[in-house]
Amino acid sequence: MAALAGPAGLRAFGTKVPGWLPRGPWAPLAAGFCNRGPAGAERPEPGPRPTSVRQRDGIRSIVLSHPKRRNALSLAMLKSLQSDILHEADSKDLKVIIISAEGPVFSSGHDLKELTDEQGPAYHAEVFQTCSEVMMQIQSHPVPVIAMVNGLATAAGCQLVASCDIAVASDKSSFATPGVNVGLFCSTPGVALGRAVPRKVALEMLFTGEPITAQEALLHGLLSRVVPEEQLEEETMRIATKIASLSRPVVSLGKAAFYKQLPQDLRTAYYLTCQTMVDNVALRDGQEGIKAFMQKRKPIWSH
Amino acid sequence: MAALAGPAGLRAFGTKVPGWLPRGPWAPLAAGFCNRGPAGAERPEPGPRPTSVRQRDGIRSIVLSHPKRRNALSLAMLKSLQSDILHEADSKDLKVIIISAEGPVFSSGHDLKELTDEQGPAYHAEVFQTCSEVMMQIQSHPVPVIAMVNGLATAAGCQLVASCDIAVASDKSSFATPGVNVGLFCSTPGVALGRAVPRKVALEMLFTGEPITAQEALLHGLLSRVVPEEQLEEETMRIATKIASLSRPVVSLGKAAFYKQLPQDLRTAYYLTCQTMVDNVALRDGQEGIKAFMQKRKPIWSH
Amino acid sequence: MAALAGPAGLRAFGTKVPGWLPRGPWAPLAAGFCNRGPAGAERPEPGPRPTSVRQRDGIRSIVLSHPKRRNALSLAMLKSLQSDILHEADSKDLKVIIISAEGPVFSSGHDLKELTDEQGPAYHAEVFQTCSEVMMQIQSHPVPVIAMVNGLATAAGCQLVASCDIAVASDKSSFATPGVNVGLFCSTPGVALGRAVPRKVALEMLFTGEPITAQEALLHGLLSRVVPEEQLEEETMRIATKIASLSRPVVSLGKAAFYKQLPQDLRTAYYLTCQTMVDNVALRDGQEGIKAFMQKRKPIWSH
Repeated sequence: MAALAGPAGLRAFGTKVPGWLPRGPWAPLAAGFCNRGPAGAERPEPGPRPTSVRQRDGIRSIVLSHPKRRNALSLAMLKSLQSDILHEADSKDLKVIIISAEGPVFSSGHDLKELTDEQGPAYHAEVFQTCSEVMMQIQSHPVPVIAMVNGLATAAGCQLVASCDIAVASDKSSFATPGVNVGLFCSTPGVALGRAVPRKVALEMLFTGEPITAQEALLHGLLSRVVPEEQLEEETMRIATKIASLSRPVVSLGKAAFYKQLPQDLRTAYYLTCQTMVDNVALRDGQEGIKAFMQKRKPIWSH
Repeated sequence: MAALAGPAGLRAFGTKVPGWLPRGPWAPLAAGFCNRGPAGAERPEPGPRPTSVRQRDGIRSIVLSHPKRRNALSLAMLKSLQSDILHEADSKDLKVIIISAEGPVFSSGHDLKELTDEQGPAYHAEVFQTCSEVMMQIQSHPVPVIAMVNGLATAAGCQLVASCDIAVASDKSSFATPGVNVGLFCSTPGVALGRAVPRKVALEMLFTGEPITAQEALLHGLLSRVVPEEQLEEETMRIATKIASLSRPVVSLGKAAFYKQLPQDLRTAYYLTCQTMVDNVALRDGQEGIKAFMQKRKPIWSH
Repeated sequence: MAALAGPAGLRAFGTKVPGWLPRGPWAPLAAGFCNRGPAGAERPEPGPRPTSVRQRDGIRSIVLSHPKRRNALSLAMLKSLQSDILHEADSKDLKVIIISAEGPVFSSGHDLKELTDEQGPAYHAEVFQTCSEVMMQIQSHPVPVIAMVNGLATAAGCQLVASCDIAVASDKSSFATPGVNVGLFCSTPGVALGRAVPRKVALEMLFTGEPITAQEALLHGLLSRVVPEEQLEEETMRIATKIASLSRPVVSLGKAAFYKQLPQDLRTAYYLTCQTMVDNVALRDGQEGIKAFMQKRKPIWSH
C-alpha cells in the first residue's frame, strides 16, 4: 500500500509514518434496495472529500473531516464514508475499521439544506436510502467497525454510533435524536437506536430530543466503553490492535454468523451457528489456533 | 373544551384553572381480537368512575383514583382507563397523555375477586383481554403516553408501566410481578416486562415475585427516568410540556413508525422508515421546521 | 427418593442429610435437530461422571465437578449435565434446579482436545449440537434453572450462564468469550450472549475475547444478581427455596408461556398469554391461591 502525505487537520494515532490509503476513483456503490436511479450520480461532487482515511497495520481509520459543517451526513459525506468503508473490503490487509471525527461534534446528522422543498422527494429519498445503506454495510462488512466518539452525536450521527459493532466514547460525549424539534422525527435513527437501547430510553430520546450523557449511553447499551477524553485514542487503539492481531477469516465468519442468528428463533439460531462452528474448526486458522493453544505457543495465522 | 370543576382528591399539576375533559358517555371500545361479545356491556358499571381525567394545553392527565382498592385494574377500572385513553384520540388538542395514580400504590394489578370460580372462564377471559387491549392501545395511540409512578406497581400495574412509551418514577417506587405467590403466574404482565428488561431480570421477578427498586428498574430499562418524589410532577410535566410544544402529526408519524419497524429485520425496518422520513419531510410541519431552523426562528406548527 | 452417600468434594449447601438423586442409567437424550446418529453412543464414557447431583426439598443441585480440567464442557461433561437436568424432569418432587461448579473456574467451555483434526467434523458437530441441545433443554425444562457462579465462566461456560433462567454470581466472578484468541469464534455462545446483553457489549466480548466483571455482567443483563462470595450460596438458596415453595404447575405454565410469547409480535404474545392466564386461573392451584389470598391464609398447593 502506497504511503502518501496526509492532509492537515487529520487526527493522527501517534504514528510517525502513516500508511495512507491510495485515493483512486470512488469505489462503485453496492447495489441496494434504495438506489432507484442515477439521481446522485448526475450531480458533481463539490470540493474536497469530507472524510479522511488512512490504514496501517490492518487498522483503517476513517475520519469525518468537515467540522465547520459539524460533520453533517450530507449526501457527499455519506458517499465518501461509504467509499472508505467499502474500499478493498476483501483485502487481507484490512482487519478492523475505526470511524471518528474532527472537531467537537462527531456528527450532527443529515444536512437539513438537502431536505428542503427545492430538492424534492426523489432527492430526499436518495439521502435517506444512502444513509440506510451505509448503516447496513457496516453490519455486513467483513471486519469489525468501531465508533470512536469524542463529542456530540445527534440524529443520523447517533444512528452511525448505534450502527457500529463496537462504540467507545470519551466521558464528555453525548447523544441525541433531536429531529422532532425541527419537525423531522428521527425515524431512521430510531431503527438503530431501538436495537441498541431499551425501548423506553429510545422513545424518551426520540420524543423529547434531549441528549443523554456518555455514562447513560453506556448504562443503556448504546456504547460498550466510556473513558476519559485523554485515554480515548489509546483505549480504542488497544481494542483495534487486539482485533488486528486475530485471524481475519475467523473474525469475519463470526461477525457474519452473529448478525445472521440474532433475529432468528433459538432453534434456528443454534442450527445455523452449530454449522458455523464446524466450519470454523475446519478453517486452517481454526486448526492452527487450537494446535498453538495445546502447544502453548502463539498462533501463526495464515488469514 | 368545557372547563368543569374537578372532583376532590384529584392530583393537580399546580394549575389554577384546569380544563376538564367533558364527561360524555364512554367512548365506544375499539374492536380487538379479544372482545367476543357483549358480556361486559351487559353489566351495569357500579358507583363512580375509578379514574379521573383532565386536559389542559394539550396534556391529558389520567389518574387511577381508587386508592382504597389499591387502584386494582378491575374490569371497571380498565374500561374507564381505556375510555379516557381513547377519548378524542384524534383531536389536534391532544398532544400527550400522563397516567398517574392516587395514593401509595400506583396499581396492584388485577382484582382477584374477579378471578374466582364464581365468575367463570368467560369473565376471566374478558378481564385479561380487556387489559391486553388497553396495553396495546397505549402503543397504537397517536400521542406519547407517559407513566408517572409514585409508589408500588405490581402485576398488571407493573405491566401498565412497562407498556407506556415513557416512564418516570419517584425514587421510592418499586415494581413486582408477584402473581406466582397466589398461584397466578404473571403471564400477561410478562409480555410487557419481557420486552422492557433483560430476560434474566424479568424471569427472576416472575419466578420469585420479589420487587425491584426504582433504581434497579432504571438500570434495567423498565423506566426512562427516576427522580426524588418532590420533583416527580415537575420532571414529568417538563417532559410532557416539551412534547406538547412539538408538531402532533410529526410525533404521531414517528411513534407509529418506531413500533412498526422495531420487530422487523434490519432491511425491512430501513425500507419502512426511509419512506416515513420522505413522508415526514413532505408534511407541512416538516417543511416549516426545516425552514424555521435555517432562518433561526421558532417553528409555527399547523398540526 | 433414596438417600445415598455423597462423593467427596461435592459442595454441600449446609445440609446435614442430603437427599441424593438415585444414579440409574443415563436418561435417554431428547431427540433434536442435532443428533444425526449414534456416534456418541458408541464411545465408552471414560472414568467417573464429571457432574455431581443431589436433590432435597424440591431443589436439585447439579455441580460441575471436574475442576482439574477447569470444568470443560467435554462431550462427557455435556451428557452428564444433560442427564442430570432431564432426570425425572416431570416429577412433582422437582421444583427448581441449581447449576454450580467446583473450583475457581465455573467452566472454561468446550474441551479443545475434542476439536482437533483427528476427531473429524462429525465428532465436532456432535459436540456443538449436544451443547446446543443442553442449552435449549434448560429453557424448555418445566422448572426454573438457576446458574450459581463463583469464578470464571468462559466460552460455552459463559453460554451456560446466559442460558439459565436466573443467574446469581459472586462479585469475584468474570465472564468472557475468548474463542477468537484460539481461532475459534464463540458463535454458539454468541446465540445465548446476544440474547442476554446489548449488542455492542456482546460484540466487544466476542471480538476481543476480554472478560467483563460480575458488576458489568449485572449492568448489562447477563446476571440477575451479584453478591459477595460468602453470601453466594445463601442468596441462591433463598431464591431457590422461594421458588420451591410455590406451585410447580403454575411456575411451569408460566415459564413455558414466557419463552413462547417472547419472540412473537405483541398481538400474538397477548393472544397466547390471555389464554395462559385463563388456563392458570382454572388450575386447582390457581383457585387455591386466590382463595387463600382472600381468606388471608397460606395456600396449600396440590401441584
